Amino acid sequence: MPIDSPAIRWLDDHLLLLDQRRLPHQTEWLSIQNASDAADAIRDMAVRGAPAIGCAAAMGIALAAVVSEAADVDSLVADLERARERLARTRPTAVNLFWALGRMSEVWQANADRGVEGIRAALIDEARTIHDEDIKTCRAIGSAGLELIPNESKILTHCNAGALATAGYGTALGVVRAAIAAGRNVSVIADETRPFLQGARLTAWELQRDQIPVTVITDNMSGYLMQQGKIDLVVVGADRIAANGDVANKIGTYTLAVLAKAHQIPFYVAAPVNTVDLATPDGSAIPIEERGRSEVAELAGRALVPEGVPVLHPAFDITPAELVTAIVTERGIIRPPYLAGLASLAR
Amino acid sequence: MPIDSPAIRWLDDHLLLLDQRRLPHQTEWLSIQNASDAADAIRDMAVRGAPAIGCAAAMGIALAAVVSEAADVDSLVADLERARERLARTRPTAVNLFWALGRMSEVWQANADRGVEGIRAALIDEARTIHDEDIKTCRAIGSAGLELIPNESKILTHCNAGALATAGYGTALGVVRAAIAAGRNVSVIADETRPFLQGARLTAWELQRDQIPVTVITDNMSGYLMQQGKIDLVVVGADRIAANGDVANKIGTYTLAVLAKAHQIPFYVAAPVNTVDLATPDGSAIPIEERGRSEVAELAGRALVPEGVPVLHPAFDITPAELVTAIVTERGIIRPPYLAGLASLAR
Repeated sequence: MPIDSPAIRWLDDHLLLLDQRRLPHQTEWLSIQNASDAADAIRDMAVRGAPAIGCAAAMGIALAAVVSEAADVDSLVADLERARERLARTRPTAVNLFWALGRMSEVWQANADRGVEGIRAALIDEARTIHDEDIKTCRAIGSAGLELIPNESKILTHCNAGALATAGYGTALGVVRAAIAAGRNVSVIADETRPFLQGARLTAWELQRDQIPVTVITDNMSGYLMQQGKIDLVVVGADRIAANGDVANKIGTYTLAVLAKAHQIPFYVAAPVNTVDLATPDGSAIPIEERGRSEVAELAGRALVPEGVPVLHPAFDITPAELVTAIVTERGIIRPPYLAGLASLAR
Repeated sequence: MPIDSPAIRWLDDHLLLLDQRRLPHQTEWLSIQNASDAADAIRDMAVRGAPAIGCAAAMGIALAAVVSEAADVDSLVADLERARERLARTRPTAVNLFWALGRMSEVWQANADRGVEGIRAALIDEARTIHDEDIKTCRAIGSAGLELIPNESKILTHCNAGALATAGYGTALGVVRAAIAAGRNVSVIADETRPFLQGARLTAWELQRDQIPVTVITDNMSGYLMQQGKIDLVVVGADRIAANGDVANKIGTYTLAVLAKAHQIPFYVAAPVNTVDLATPDGSAIPIEERGRSEVAELAGRALVPEGVPVLHPAFDITPAELVTAIVTERGIIRPPYLAGLASLAR
């Protein structure tokens, strides 16, 4: 597997997803045969990260076309609509999911006159294009963000916005990879990112494979390290960016942004333009997914919390635009005021 | 076991410690036969929490006296000095450890003319006194803190500053218990407190037993809940309070204090006067214990971090006095400026 390893592989009649729940212990690939399998993998976080969810959803639609036994276009479109509905119900926060489903839907509408086989071929082609574009987009984000990363930077990141969260290379970690490729001596502090431990398990895993220096901390150590002058900048990904620049990202991102401001440390968000949702005016309109008790209260089948004690599990939080120093996209760096900058991007 | 259950029981010729590493799964008591056993239990966190560490250390000295085969006072004192050195090397941050060892040392010096049996009896008596005083102190902290807890408060606490961290009743949780006893309808949000999970395992366990409403969150959810208006105040314990009011406490406390300030939420520290260390001018002089990799990188024997990836494990952090709204002690509430207030307390 190459270093910026795609965790998503399209194999014509099925899809392979690296099961991210099992990393770093096992590299096990799930064979995804249809849209329902893809939806389960997204919902259960075998694949996660906003851009990767978008790719997997697009491929889920392509698989729906592959396995459909429809003899005519109307029946195929009905199968595709069902697949889209199923995939859309998996996770509410990352807008890339809906963006990818919308793009696939446009393809089947635009190719309605090409017959069942023509639509099928066009959908497979589009899913592969979305995947290939995402890698290129991540590399462009990396290049664009390079100017924000001084030599010798100690970079704090949250969750995993890396190769595993995208079709490859990563968004926040794409910026890190670009800095390394440019010869800069940088190191990463990865907070473990409870409850799913994307930082400890995934960011550490992929950076170690790339021989990029990485140190893992628990989430509650970030403030201490900033106080000690051991963090120079923060860079995170995003699940949705509202028109005003408010950022939905993995729970804990907001806490880091507050800490960064208190310590006058730059706080950067790296994300593709398809994460920007101009239809959402601000963060208050972004749905925050609530996940189940067990992901917080248990780990590897072991209870961490006494039985009967309730837990909360918001999976995301909203970082208000005023705490975001800049947003790095494949079309360049956007700085405040975000409303105008983000609107111009999406044109 | 009563609700404000002592986790420390003195049984004349040995000590029972509730093994807090095994909660909430098992309530298993460790039989501590001598000072070396007590030191191991403190170092390995079978007993933890600054006041409880002080009690256990005092009882460790008493056990050293019990098991000593010394025929004369000089030999006994040599045994006691060895025990004190062994106990003093266990954990560097909580000043209560050194306070208790100093107090026991004064007792063997003051009773030097009473012979081996006289010193032995005096040390046992003093260890029991320290234990009994600590419960009374906690109840007095609770009463003193009552005025800070409005009815219907949603109280965030960190780590475990409860019955399990003291001889009983608790410091931060003592304030909660006093509010409940006064008929106030309050509820607790306990952050899980990685890596040792004192919040998820211990605070949740003892509050559930007391039928005090408690909800567990991961450490990175605190900012989000404050942003949503779901936290009214923060109350934590302390491992050492410097003369200027800087507070050493479990890693993550500083982050909560920064978040509380950003959201204009009161941030209270509840601790006995013996946690105040007037010999330490400010937080920069407090030693921060660094613990090993495995407590961060593994859980219940399972690796959370890829092999070979380094971790950091500062066990405490320093919250500067300017982020502390008030310090609650058994002698009343101290407010800024702390230098004068804390100095007057210790007199």
